[in-house]
Amino acid sequence: MDEKGNPKSIKLPETVEAFSNLKNAKRFAIDIGGTLTKIAYYSTVSYRRINYEADQDNTVSSEEQNKYELSENARLHFIKFETKYIENCLDFICENLVSSREKMAGKTIKATGGGAYRYADLLQESLGLSVDKEEEMDCLIKGCNFLLKNISDEAFVFHRHGTPEYDFQMADPNIFPYMLVNIGSGVSIMKVESEDSYERIGGTATGGGTFWGLGSLLTKAKGFDELLALAESGDHRKVDMLVKDIFGGDCKGLGLPADLIASSFGKVCPKRGTETMCSEADVARSLLFTISNDIGQIACLYAMMHKLNKVYFGGYFLRNHPLSMHTISFSINYWSKGTVQSLFLRHEGYLGAIGAFLIGAEECDDERYSWLENYAGSSGLQSYVESRVLPDSKVSVDQLELDRLESPLAYCPLLTSPALYVPDTVDLNADAEAREYWLQCFEDSLDKFVVTAVASQPSSETGELRAQQFRHKYVSRLRRLRRQPFAYGNLTVRSLLDTIEHCLKEFDFPDPYLTQKQMENECALSLLRERLDELDGMQSERERHIELVTSILAGNMFDWGAKEVVEIMETKQFGFREARARIPERPWLVDCLDAWLDRLEQKEAHHCAAIFADNSGVDIILGILPFARELIQRGTKVILCANSAPALNDVTHSELLVILRQAAAICPIISRALTNGELVAMETAQAGPCLDLSRLNGELAKQMRFVDLLVLEGMGRAVHTNLNAQFRCECLKVAVIKNRWLANRLGGPMFSVLCKYEVKNQS
Amino acid sequence: MDEKGNPKSIKLPETVEAFSNLKNAKRFAIDIGGTLTKIAYYSTVSYRRINYEADQDNTVSSEEQNKYELSENARLHFIKFETKYIENCLDFICENLVSSREKMAGKTIKATGGGAYRYADLLQESLGLSVDKEEEMDCLIKGCNFLLKNISDEAFVFHRHGTPEYDFQMADPNIFPYMLVNIGSGVSIMKVESEDSYERIGGTATGGGTFWGLGSLLTKAKGFDELLALAESGDHRKVDMLVKDIFGGDCKGLGLPADLIASSFGKVCPKRGTETMCSEADVARSLLFTISNDIGQIACLYAMMHKLNKVYFGGYFLRNHPLSMHTISFSINYWSKGTVQSLFLRHEGYLGAIGAFLIGAEECDDERYSWLENYAGSSGLQSYVESRVLPDSKVSVDQLELDRLESPLAYCPLLTSPALYVPDTVDLNADAEAREYWLQCFEDSLDKFVVTAVASQPSSETGELRAQQFRHKYVSRLRRLRRQPFAYGNLTVRSLLDTIEHCLKEFDFPDPYLTQKQMENECALSLLRERLDELDGMQSERERHIELVTSILAGNMFDWGAKEVVEIMETKQFGFREARARIPERPWLVDCLDAWLDRLEQKEAHHCAAIFADNSGVDIILGILPFARELIQRGTKVILCANSAPALNDVTHSELLVILRQAAAICPIISRALTNGELVAMETAQAGPCLDLSRLNGELAKQMRFVDLLVLEGMGRAVHTNLNAQFRCECLKVAVIKNRWLANRLGGPMFSVLCKYEVKNQS
Repeated sequence: MDEKGNPKSIKLPETVEAFSNLKNAKRFAIDIGGTLTKIAYYSTVSYRRINYEADQDNTVSSEEQNKYELSENARLHFIKFETKYIENCLDFICENLVSSREKMAGKTIKATGGGAYRYADLLQESLGLSVDKEEEMDCLIKGCNFLLKNISDEAFVFHRHGTPEYDFQMADPNIFPYMLVNIGSGVSIMKVESEDSYERIGGTATGGGTFWGLGSLLTKAKGFDELLALAESGDHRKVDMLVKDIFGGDCKGLGLPADLIASSFGKVCPKRGTETMCSEADVARSLLFTISNDIGQIACLYAMMHKLNKVYFGGYFLRNHPLSMHTISFSINYWSKGTVQSLFLRHEGYLGAIGAFLIGAEECDDERYSWLENYAGSSGLQSYVESRVLPDSKVSVDQLELDRLESPLAYCPLLTSPALYVPDTVDLNADAEAREYWLQCFEDSLDKFVVTAVASQPSSETGELRAQQFRHKYVSRLRRLRRQPFAYGNLTVRSLLDTIEHCLKEFDFPDPYLTQKQMENECALSLLRERLDELDGMQSERERHIELVTSILAGNMFDWGAKEVVEIMETKQFGFREARARIPERPWLVDCLDAWLDRLEQKEAHHCAAIFADNSGVDIILGILPFARELIQRGTKVILCANSAPALNDVTHSELLVILRQAAAICPIISRALTNGELVAMETAQAGPCLDLSRLNGELAKQMRFVDLLVLEGMGRAVHTNLNAQFRCECLKVAVIKNRWLANRLGGPMFSVLCKYEVKNQS
Repeated sequence: MDEKGNPKSIKLPETVEAFSNLKNAKRFAIDIGGTLTKIAYYSTVSYRRINYEADQDNTVSSEEQNKYELSENARLHFIKFETKYIENCLDFICENLVSSREKMAGKTIKATGGGAYRYADLLQESLGLSVDKEEEMDCLIKGCNFLLKNISDEAFVFHRHGTPEYDFQMADPNIFPYMLVNIGSGVSIMKVESEDSYERIGGTATGGGTFWGLGSLLTKAKGFDELLALAESGDHRKVDMLVKDIFGGDCKGLGLPADLIASSFGKVCPKRGTETMCSEADVARSLLFTISNDIGQIACLYAMMHKLNKVYFGGYFLRNHPLSMHTISFSINYWSKGTVQSLFLRHEGYLGAIGAFLIGAEECDDERYSWLENYAGSSGLQSYVESRVLPDSKVSVDQLELDRLESPLAYCPLLTSPALYVPDTVDLNADAEAREYWLQCFEDSLDKFVVTAVASQPSSETGELRAQQFRHKYVSRLRRLRRQPFAYGNLTVRSLLDTIEHCLKEFDFPDPYLTQKQMENECALSLLRERLDELDGMQSERERHIELVTSILAGNMFDWGAKEVVEIMETKQFGFREARARIPERPWLVDCLDAWLDRLEQKEAHHCAAIFADNSGVDIILGILPFARELIQRGTKVILCANSAPALNDVTHSELLVILRQAAAICPIISRALTNGELVAMETAQAGPCLDLSRLNGELAKQMRFVDLLVLEGMGRAVHTNLNAQFRCECLKVAVIKNRWLANRLGGPMFSVLCKYEVKNQS
């Protein structure tokens, strides 16, 4: 603790965000290209984390600081800047590494890219690290495999005139084989067949160097991006000879459409007595088309020859530039007649640096860890539009930060078609109306989050400041997403919720709803015995089963993430009975309750149920626990699945362990079940209110193989995500729609009920 | 006859050679490209031809003009010139067509190429022909098939640093399937599977228009050829980034050689404070490499994908330009690892015009006719170096003339490996020493040819002038071939001899050796009875067989084409006995005589023998006839094969018919054989002293299927050509080497004897 009551080692958020956590940097890699340099480093970030166990025995009014424990999170940082600033950047690193310079002595830096040779001495001198050069292609492939396997929405198909323009691809469990086209100064084409095997099957010397070389001879553009911007404003039809320029329209004989380019630059040949009428912008655009078309065609021919239908593009030429991606996509699609898919990568610029870092990096062991893109620390797509600035210089940088999860992730084995699984129900990139609503909704909710965050740290002097920084960060992110909904992959309610959590964590609000949750848990636990007796006393089994589902619905009303519910709950006159009373009469909006009841009556007990729970308090204690207890009594093993990290008032795995202990003291059935393993709590690896079943905690995923009943509870897990997911087992999706707009959109009023029961779907 | 004793309709050779025979033009086709226009027309050429039959009953001193009859030869003309001169050229055609304009009324002109639309009205107005537009690709393919099937040495592989640079391909009886890459402003790639079926399988917009368009923006070159010339002088290494610029040498990891281009134009990106150091020539060369490499690679990928190993290139971009052909060849070879062969066409510029002409052209019926490149009237390869000029203008034109043969040609069915057959023993493109010798030898012999030509038309007033024009033409051709041995395909003794005949015919010397041949025939016939009695009187069959072969050798001494023999013969004291005395003692240089004698003694008579005879006079009458008579007496049918048209003092088919009639009057055995078909004379379709067994008269080729003994006589048929040819039947090759240099080269003295007997070779 310092004198102001702030825990030591917890620094104030930096006003300069570039090169964050540099002081704790433990390992470096660098990819020095002709134009851009990418630095990768691994460091640890200290965070405060709630110690739920410690808190359990204290009263709510116990010393605030006792609630926290310090936690070290591992993080991978990637920074990209123009190579011409490499000395400024290395100087900056050097100054900020001072504290840990000794620790680095004798260590090495992995280096790749064309500049690895030229700058080896500079690296050695300025950082005091010996330089290990790594083969560029090895790094690219390793980097690409890593991104495709670990980062959600990494790859996307680009449709310049589509809605959405960016069609992000779910990470496919099986990424091989694929083709990687790396467009640097020249172009290399690789066939990648497994983690350890790839082959350079081709290439072409017509690449980014050709675009920029010819562009600098043909225009006055002073840089690559300026040349791209010029191309964006030009009209290539003044430069290129189109099919219609020759045939007056389509060339039906050869099946060539009128607007197809017949001869690039074919219109500039000087005619007698005429001057060329094209501008530099027209020329730049034609040049971009020439190079992109050519690369696209050659890539496509290699893909078809090697029977590869996924082609990923990387390298500095593309820079996620829409016009280039469009031309390459068009070309691939045209020449393959749609059989080859061109895919781009959100982080294509980092492939080499990531790969160089990964070579021999224990910190990244696939078997032990997994990775999560930190939305608070990463720059997002099209960073050439927005970028951050180093102090005392005009160096623009772009960042990618990946947080390490201490366990591997896996696909939920119950998904019917893992390759087709998309967790999110609505793609806000594609659905402009929904996007507009949710962006505004989250912006409107922000005041409550800020107030709650400040209230959660009443004795911190910096709480108010950090909360305002959090507000600023999140609002600017929401506004960025309004302009570029594709900036961080698929824009979804899930990603917007996750971003809140990343930002809160970044500004040191480890669990703003902690107090609220604890209060509600205590309150609900005090009612548990009575409620269980009430249920046990019911004569009709069917009525009890109805009441158990209704209880989950009533519990699910208690949601501090739902703006309109918060207003009700803040009246303080809102308890389980009040919530129960608000559940509408049947038939509900989606009402499969009878089918569920019939199932329970007519068939044997389930072997094993996995229940993905939602909120703390009434929800988990008076809704989920009695329901689980009933299943257990029927002979079903129950796995209660809860988030690994806090998100709003969702119950976390750590909290759940405490709650179950307390419930066991109240109910002998629960106690016995916990003892003999009929009731277990497991963590999901999620850190937000939604549920991505493609990134499930590995241990949980293993257990899921024995599950024959899946229960998804709440809006986040059963409506925003997984509403349409199909499973190889029975599934019960239960939620109250606590958002008027969404309820209306689904065709019902506020507090509409979703009770969806699905039998197993094997296909 | 006109008043000067020249037959009517025989015009003096034109001083302006372009658009020859325009007055008789009967059908037109035109291919109007953006840069070059190609006109095709069919016309008839009137030639004087010897009437051997008419002459037979006259004395040598009969009226000279009675020897001739008029003959109409059909000829296809192709002319190429820059499209910007199209109006001048159409005007020229119009003026020169006057005489036959009425005949053209109501007729059509086939038109193709991009300009067919733009210039349709002009064509209609200026020529009075209605315009039939033909699809460009159909024309290209038709033209390509025609050239590959009909023109010797049309296709070649190009090795810029090879000896020879040009590796001409024998026309393969089976040309399909192949790939045609047409590089115009853009590039079209076609898969051709048969005469009637092709498919456009791809293309690229990076073509000739791109080269010229970018070139005109980047350099001050005023035309395509100027840009090519600029490229020829540049150094692309100042512009392109090579593998060694990145890796300091080879990139062994990726298997890339140091000098490979890694990034076209990759070196021109302006660095801070530096100016680009490259010249316009450097840029032009790099541009040529960029475009050619790209086209080569794309073509190669299509070829591999469609499993086609022959790729022909056509279109205006190449222009048989060595640097472009080299780059494309290199690219194809590199990317296909040698599995795809890139082939260029000597007449690639004419594909469209030829194809347009052929559509519906009865004059070109494959089944009825065949075609022979007229070496006198065609411009030869690399016409952009040399070209001809229209009168009163500076229009440069390039020409191709094809003479029609009135029967189809066919491969000799006796060849062991038709696809591997190369008629010529020495490739003078590859063998510089032999080339030097033969070019000089022919130049030295020219005086004799000129004197003989003049002497053959003693009463013509223009004889001397035409003979000098012939000399000028042939000498300039020899000198051109010294500089560009590849100008007309493979340079061989055969092609040099053929060129003499084409030029003599062009300048109206239909058969300069006629008088000489007739005199010798008469003289030899007067000795025939005595000689036959002498042979019949020989006791030993073996000795007679020896004497029969020796007689052929003695007869073969009489050769007015062999410079050193001419000098001996001119002493006039040289008869059969003198020649017989000059035959060296055995063993001869190549001496299989004993094997031949054993064959005759030990096995049954041959079923049918084909004897390819050489000279008139002693050779055919005292050498070949007794030999044939012996075979006939043994029970063998004999086909005497003679040239279709005159060449030096070679016996022609028409002459042979006369000789056989005369011999029949002398010898009852010959008479009986002629009557009952045991002795027949057939024409070979050859018009030179050599023998190309891939272009044999179709009727003869049919008869050859029954032949089990092939006799090739003389230097032209058994040494300059076919020395190494292998046959599916027995073959006797007999010749006296009447050239000291050649005899020495073969390892013997002057008058060395070749008597090569080979049993059948089936493999």
